[in-house]
Amino acid sequence: MPSHVSPPRGMRDFLPAEKRRRERVLAIVRDVYRSFGFDEIETPVVEGTEYLYSGLGGDNEKQVFAVLRRGLDVDALRAAESPLALADLGLRFDLTVPLARFYASHRSELPTVFRSVQVAPVWRAEKPQKGRYRQFLQCDIDILGEAGPLAEVELISATTAVLTALGLTGTTIRINDRRVLLGILAHWGVPADLNDRALVELDKLDKIGVDGVVARLAEIGVEHAGVGDALAELSSTDWSTITGDAPPAWLDGAAAADLVALRDALPEARLVFDPTLVRGMGYYTGTIFEVAHPDFSYSLGGGGRYDGMIGRFLGTDVPAAGFSLGFERIVDLADLDDAEGDGLALVHDAAVPPVELVGLRTALLSGAESRVRLERRSKNLSRQLDALAEAGYTRFAFVRGGESPSDLVVKTLG
Amino acid sequence: MPSHVSPPRGMRDFLPAEKRRRERVLAIVRDVYRSFGFDEIETPVVEGTEYLYSGLGGDNEKQVFAVLRRGLDVDALRAAESPLALADLGLRFDLTVPLARFYASHRSELPTVFRSVQVAPVWRAEKPQKGRYRQFLQCDIDILGEAGPLAEVELISATTAVLTALGLTGTTIRINDRRVLLGILAHWGVPADLNDRALVELDKLDKIGVDGVVARLAEIGVEHAGVGDALAELSSTDWSTITGDAPPAWLDGAAAADLVALRDALPEARLVFDPTLVRGMGYYTGTIFEVAHPDFSYSLGGGGRYDGMIGRFLGTDVPAAGFSLGFERIVDLADLDDAEGDGLALVHDAAVPPVELVGLRTALLSGAESRVRLERRSKNLSRQLDALAEAGYTRFAFVRGGESPSDLVVKTLG
Repeated sequence: MPSHVSPPRGMRDFLPAEKRRRERVLAIVRDVYRSFGFDEIETPVVEGTEYLYSGLGGDNEKQVFAVLRRGLDVDALRAAESPLALADLGLRFDLTVPLARFYASHRSELPTVFRSVQVAPVWRAEKPQKGRYRQFLQCDIDILGEAGPLAEVELISATTAVLTALGLTGTTIRINDRRVLLGILAHWGVPADLNDRALVELDKLDKIGVDGVVARLAEIGVEHAGVGDALAELSSTDWSTITGDAPPAWLDGAAAADLVALRDALPEARLVFDPTLVRGMGYYTGTIFEVAHPDFSYSLGGGGRYDGMIGRFLGTDVPAAGFSLGFERIVDLADLDDAEGDGLALVHDAAVPPVELVGLRTALLSGAESRVRLERRSKNLSRQLDALAEAGYTRFAFVRGGESPSDLVVKTLG
Repeated sequence: MPSHVSPPRGMRDFLPAEKRRRERVLAIVRDVYRSFGFDEIETPVVEGTEYLYSGLGGDNEKQVFAVLRRGLDVDALRAAESPLALADLGLRFDLTVPLARFYASHRSELPTVFRSVQVAPVWRAEKPQKGRYRQFLQCDIDILGEAGPLAEVELISATTAVLTALGLTGTTIRINDRRVLLGILAHWGVPADLNDRALVELDKLDKIGVDGVVARLAEIGVEHAGVGDALAELSSTDWSTITGDAPPAWLDGAAAADLVALRDALPEARLVFDPTLVRGMGYYTGTIFEVAHPDFSYSLGGGGRYDGMIGRFLGTDVPAAGFSLGFERIVDLADLDDAEGDGLALVHDAAVPPVELVGLRTALLSGAESRVRLERRSKNLSRQLDALAEAGYTRFAFVRGGESPSDLVVKTLG
């Protein structure tokens, strides 16, 4: 075996303290979403390649960890037209494609309006870099079967409640609508077949500024004297002044009405209208949103309406909207209380018979103790006690043999 | 898209009711193991093929879902000597190999005696059949760094506590020791190089009986006049009469002493000594055990001591023992209380503005309610209410617009 034994590249092991923190954050996320009426589901970590490579995953499809068919022989390798022809399954790259597949598999067993929660890992073979992992957790909620803005209102209010419960103060929700973006492009005279490419460039506004975007748009053939001014105007739009009745000329009327409905329904959600927000996935059809935090340039999560997607799997269109939280980002920011250090360690001499130790623990757990660890006393006691304190065992008692639970002298650690 | 949209063959989706049940059982498993001083860890779902195909997984290595290397081209397919040469990762088939790899990666960060819990899925490309799945959960506890029988005592007492907490009554723990098995074979004069094959045959005793095993042993060259009688004697050994001081001639002395220590330390664990218990994995070096339930021919879990395994990864031997519960079997047997139906559904007219609905929910959740679902009133109200009751919403109130929380008339469902 090699001297450097490591998890796979770009993936992580979680040691007890980190794993515990993650589970505590997950429990809060699950509890809040459940309190808002969402139901948790689970799908296998792999999906058939016919679903993963359906075109709905955008660039993520290029990052699939593909699973080799079983029972292949060398002849199959020689005959295959491409590596992917040897794969029948792949690790999912998001939770949205599996949800669409799940819904298509089980629609008759689900309520008319189905509110799902998924808390689960996804995999992407990205180039590993700081803060980017090849296996990471996503927390998705989705509402399937609800066409009106009540879906977005529920998604945003529930997610805002999660962020509050995790102590993430100062977040805002940037919101836009694909119809707003398409309206802007139409207002500029962009031909429809250039829309997708123009949106890719517009999405870079944060990074390359108005002049950069104008230059990029010109490169793909979108030249319009007023684009620069219009972009600057868009970026500084005062959201509070927009009404559904008399939207600006570049603002799609139906989208404006929905946005105003969201703004008015969510006075406490700190919504910020950003008509230049794009979000990458091509499947969005209406509202799109992202969670912004003042300390970070990237978003903590996002989502939107994707009315056309379920139909790709089911054959019948079903309105759908979802919100995904990037768990790996929020787990570091979450402000958890420190009420974990409740364990009692029984530091025993080597000679104490196991039957006594087990009996003591059983008695203590039946009483007031919630967590009891047996630890053979080591030569370096002070180091042992330090390690126990770090593992959340804040109290200890020596066991030398023959004690009953009431004989134990419990001392506090740390 | 095909008309039958399904999860991958042999794998399952979990709908809300089943997912909820699974999470509740997992919470109990985690809580009990934590109360016994075990710490939860997590590893990536894939491991490098150099670890998965190390020979420690036995037949499970043949059932790996292997992951294709990224960036392969057709030339690589033509040049590859075998399909596995194209894979660098694979989905884990158990939690023991990943634990050994984890321990080798992080030993300096872990306590001298490390008690781990893993609650996580594993994958095996078995032929799908009733009750066998290609993705399934295992709940493993392991104690690394403890050479004495206290490790087994802790593993068995903690697992017994889990079974009790889940309401699984009537289980027994069948226990044996690899040294007992090897001693029996030596007593029969079996050459050491036939031991593994002889154990495979002995393992079939439950299914093919004494005569069947005698015939199979003869086929591989193990012929001994007394084998049949000895097997019958072994099967009916009265465990309570064995002492460490004067074990029967066929019983390894050190193993007998350890078994007697376990028996005496665990008076309430319903241990049953079964000198013909084999368990398949070749890595066991000492005690082995299985959970038996009177209603099932298969075991609900099992484990044992595997002192040589960690050294394969770390380069230094570390004593180790573990106990794995088959979650898919216990989740169906668990006896959970029925205290889940606590939700309140707000059945609202379509015209009620979202801002009102969200405000009502916020107020109710701030008060005594723990779970509130918004449901637009459907044409078939009685069907809607039935579905709500089934989803655990045992109470509902109509919302027609303009109500404050105290105006709501809450009715009980079901």
